[in-house]
Amino acid sequence: MRIGELSRRSGVPVPTIKYYVRERLLPPGELTSPNQADYGPGHERRLRLIRVLLEVGGLSLAAIGEVLEAADDPEQPVIKVLGAAAKGVTPLEEGESGPELDQARDDVSALLGRRDWRVSEGTTAAESLAGVIAALRRVGHGGLVELLEVYADAAEVVARADLDYVQRKVAREELVESVVVGTVLGEAMFGALRRLAHEDVSVQRYESRVAGGGAPPVT
Amino acid sequence: MRIGELSRRSGVPVPTIKYYVRERLLPPGELTSPNQADYGPGHERRLRLIRVLLEVGGLSLAAIGEVLEAADDPEQPVIKVLGAAAKGVTPLEEGESGPELDQARDDVSALLGRRDWRVSEGTTAAESLAGVIAALRRVGHGGLVELLEVYADAAEVVARADLDYVQRKVAREELVESVVVGTVLGEAMFGALRRLAHEDVSVQRYESRVAGGGAPPVT
Repeated sequence: MRIGELSRRSGVPVPTIKYYVRERLLPPGELTSPNQADYGPGHERRLRLIRVLLEVGGLSLAAIGEVLEAADDPEQPVIKVLGAAAKGVTPLEEGESGPELDQARDDVSALLGRRDWRVSEGTTAAESLAGVIAALRRVGHGGLVELLEVYADAAEVVARADLDYVQRKVAREELVESVVVGTVLGEAMFGALRRLAHEDVSVQRYESRVAGGGAPPVT
Repeated sequence: MRIGELSRRSGVPVPTIKYYVRERLLPPGELTSPNQADYGPGHERRLRLIRVLLEVGGLSLAAIGEVLEAADDPEQPVIKVLGAAAKGVTPLEEGESGPELDQARDDVSALLGRRDWRVSEGTTAAESLAGVIAALRRVGHGGLVELLEVYADAAEVVARADLDYVQRKVAREELVESVVVGTVLGEAMFGALRRLAHEDVSVQRYESRVAGGGAPPVT
């Protein structure tokens, strides 16, 4: 199909498609004449993936580029693609260091040891977890760190289900794409569910009934 | 303390502190002379909270302002503060609508009914979950929607533990602050743990051993 049709089908404007091609997020179309290129269903699918990672997953274009590069390289083991996707969703870390962060890193190592989780040295998720733990203590809510085991139990259940889903994919292309989508959108899915569950549990505990908008202040 | 000391203790530059006061994120200090104000430990604590929500939680200053406004208003029920915090972490929604989003909203309603989760009409988390489900289908990974129940089970366990922690707080001020911190940082904590568990489960399934950086491609 021509670029105009690709734009109509994917909802992505033509200049944006051209920009993605220049930035190597999208492979170029096949040239059919010096100024005309032909795009296929693979392009349309890739465009939808980029938009979802951008708009729903909140990844930057740079992060998407890294994830897709890992996904497109058939030499890359699945676990590296997973790592690239995980890095993309990791929020910016604070440049800070200090005794709090060192202690938090020790806590993360202890947790990994206790649970016998084997992860590679210096993996971004471990650093990101240490950052969260240090931040909780810094704002005087170190008590929330006690919830680490409950969270880790839940995370393990969810991660197993994720990988079960991924393993059903036979073709590598489909498999790595489901890893990327699952890592990024799974996080958004869990976050939304946790907030819904919060609302339900607080209604049960703090309010006797659900009221439209005129609920009396119950503190 | 003077603004200079508040800056040293919190690590936040003086112009930034002044900006937060102008934007009403931070209450002004008590004037001790026409051009000098006195700040207390409450200011320091609030500043740390703002920085953590900004840097670790990834909230915008506008979102932080809304959360703090709800938290500071003693008339606001706890559930509304929770709602404001939840809204802050919700990623931007796509403006799109259409049959996919309508179907996804029906799926969310069905899920809420099945689990007997009572949430208020049009709560942002429900809309955000519908957006994720529609996005999964749009990129051809509607199969991940099957994991909704596993995710919801895990989310319920985590949400209960969160509220147990929050309920131990006696003073309202402490309680609402722990709601805000728990909602925002708890999400980051779970995300990091899920990614760590992914890595462990993939190592178990896709690689026989963990190698430093020269792991052979196993796809």
